[in-house]
Amino acid sequence: MSRATTPRPVSRRRLLTGGALAAGGALAVGAAVAATRPEPGAHPAGMMPAGEVGEAVEPFHGARQAGVATEPQAHGAFVAFTLKPGTDRAALGRMLRLLSDDAARLTQGRPALADTEPELGLLPARLTVTFGFGPGLYAAAGLADRRPPSVADLPSFRIDRLQPRWSGGDLLLQICADDPLTVAHAQRVLVKDSRPFATVRWVQQGFRRAAGAEPGRTQRNLFGQLDGTANPKPGGSLETAVWVTDGPAWLRDSTTLVVRRISMNLETWDLLGRTDRELAVGRRLDTGAPLTGTTEHDQPDFAATGPDGLTVIPDFSHLTRAHVTDDRYKIHRRPYNYDGAPTPEGHADAGLIFASYQADVTRQFLPIQQRLAERDLLNEWTAPIGSAVFAIPPGCPDGGWIGQQLLG
Amino acid sequence: MSRATTPRPVSRRRLLTGGALAAGGALAVGAAVAATRPEPGAHPAGMMPAGEVGEAVEPFHGARQAGVATEPQAHGAFVAFTLKPGTDRAALGRMLRLLSDDAARLTQGRPALADTEPELGLLPARLTVTFGFGPGLYAAAGLADRRPPSVADLPSFRIDRLQPRWSGGDLLLQICADDPLTVAHAQRVLVKDSRPFATVRWVQQGFRRAAGAEPGRTQRNLFGQLDGTANPKPGGSLETAVWVTDGPAWLRDSTTLVVRRISMNLETWDLLGRTDRELAVGRRLDTGAPLTGTTEHDQPDFAATGPDGLTVIPDFSHLTRAHVTDDRYKIHRRPYNYDGAPTPEGHADAGLIFASYQADVTRQFLPIQQRLAERDLLNEWTAPIGSAVFAIPPGCPDGGWIGQQLLG
Repeated sequence: MSRATTPRPVSRRRLLTGGALAAGGALAVGAAVAATRPEPGAHPAGMMPAGEVGEAVEPFHGARQAGVATEPQAHGAFVAFTLKPGTDRAALGRMLRLLSDDAARLTQGRPALADTEPELGLLPARLTVTFGFGPGLYAAAGLADRRPPSVADLPSFRIDRLQPRWSGGDLLLQICADDPLTVAHAQRVLVKDSRPFATVRWVQQGFRRAAGAEPGRTQRNLFGQLDGTANPKPGGSLETAVWVTDGPAWLRDSTTLVVRRISMNLETWDLLGRTDRELAVGRRLDTGAPLTGTTEHDQPDFAATGPDGLTVIPDFSHLTRAHVTDDRYKIHRRPYNYDGAPTPEGHADAGLIFASYQADVTRQFLPIQQRLAERDLLNEWTAPIGSAVFAIPPGCPDGGWIGQQLLG
Repeated sequence: MSRATTPRPVSRRRLLTGGALAAGGALAVGAAVAATRPEPGAHPAGMMPAGEVGEAVEPFHGARQAGVATEPQAHGAFVAFTLKPGTDRAALGRMLRLLSDDAARLTQGRPALADTEPELGLLPARLTVTFGFGPGLYAAAGLADRRPPSVADLPSFRIDRLQPRWSGGDLLLQICADDPLTVAHAQRVLVKDSRPFATVRWVQQGFRRAAGAEPGRTQRNLFGQLDGTANPKPGGSLETAVWVTDGPAWLRDSTTLVVRRISMNLETWDLLGRTDRELAVGRRLDTGAPLTGTTEHDQPDFAATGPDGLTVIPDFSHLTRAHVTDDRYKIHRRPYNYDGAPTPEGHADAGLIFASYQADVTRQFLPIQQRLAERDLLNEWTAPIGSAVFAIPPGCPDGGWIGQQLLG
């Protein structure tokens, strides 16, 4: 797989920086990501060059896949596929070679090989394409014994209202960029090249704050809550919480992804007073501070009691039920909002494409989800309507392809 | 209608600038828009402050509505309503007072009065809310005689494949901003406040390039074509092409909007070679230059012939059929791309929310549309699947409401 002969200078410079760092191994990946993104302080007085949003590049090659620890882009499309009956291990190898090559080019601002709209491939806007392997892919490849045990349908929860149209999948492509046209074009190219091998099972398209709208701030969901405050820190706890650091080559530097489509009932939520909302969340709506603190990142004090003798942060609050103190058991949330067309009566079709990365679904995600399903008051206004679990295999070096350690 | 007591400084400063200019009358509107948006040269070396995208404000009050001559924002939601049977002239007045107040606040980065997620109302990101009146609104108000004659269903065209689910509407809200969460929140607030008076008929959500992705460039559609090259120029031909400059108060400073949902068949388009595509469009795909020129804004030479004696720009090309030389007959296109979930077979649900502003539909839009329907080769790969026409009434001063000249 050769490089294009005339990449644009900005992409090229960044590519080399990112590539060189990524070649240094797993520990360098965080640094590579940082090196390819403009630092807030890298320009005078917090200014950034016009056009920066479109030109910015995230590395594709490296020990780990991009799109996990990458600072979330504004737009995301989650595309799940069902493999066609004939797609065996050899066919999967062909498919993933092709899709990896597409992703390697498009993420660096170069059109795909068979790109029929090459002009739409020139603005990467921090595009990342992250590949996920569902249980069916291991079965189709005859490699069920290499499937991480927790990469399987989640157990049923009382709160589930799962619909097949948003659930499952043999292969996932998480396509994220700061520009919606870039996402649409990458989705088109990747879906077209997957067609000999797979059908589209579901697509979920979502958004966060636009690039440059609110830099450095935790994003809000459509309930108005800050979302992602408790995430493990890049370079710190994220390392241990997200990445598998040992085992055979197809596991090392891998992670897992849980995608849940959470319908949010704005109708009933909007009937709730502000105090009741804050008790349900366990945080202030304006600052995101825990009810026992004053700023967003204050540690919650679950033992603190009020004048009435009750804990200030209720036991049924989302914060209490989701809270994890041990860094090794944290999950890294990377969600997107969705907002479709309202009903004729004006009821919103809104919610969250919940996406969490963790080294092990059973050890990290499930205990939190079980606590939330049991007693989180937010369940009154939310319902999971889709669910899927994927292994996120390791990255690949220049010239390699995603999945080569497993299927090659 | 009073101002909030503690608007944020940036908004406030901009608000005053925009308001002061808008108070100067119609001619100042273009200047007001410019004054509230960072000029490319206003910051050293083409830099813009981080956070600028979220903080940027477009004026709401003024002789003309915003969202027409406003430089298109990255995201747009077109929300069409059907009035409920009881919504007469008086009820329309109440509805439009309420929605105008919501829009006046949200566009300036202040929550709506009954905002249940006020934190989502603080980042305007150049939000505009543009009100359109369909034929049914005039009828419901008992003011059919004040309906501009061309605000009516378009005649049928041979190429039409119109679906009721994307067509018609008594009231339209065009909600545009550079941040998708800002659009979603504004849509939620406005739909909620419309519910006593109307039901949602259809919603079309679309996108263009992200803010800062490609500043100053003509956007591309999902065929990869540059889209909007021939638009009339702000401050110049746009003045005469778009705005009604005389007549009674409910017509002066008004315009009209045609919204057509154009399905684009990427499957068949992608089978076409590059030369054939360029002949169909009449322009180069890379630069957007006419086939007789070298840069995007070169004037096409329709008489120029090639070695074969045929015109270089074919008579069936989109450029030829859509071309208008007289500024007074031009239309101002302000379209958004849409891209839904592909089919299981991987066929895209993609196209264009075509939106054009013009002083008179019959005089300006229809002749172009008739020429295109007769013979534009692009019809082979596109089909109109929705159509609606709205009057865009004049703007309103601070303390006023959209529609007051007609309904007050």
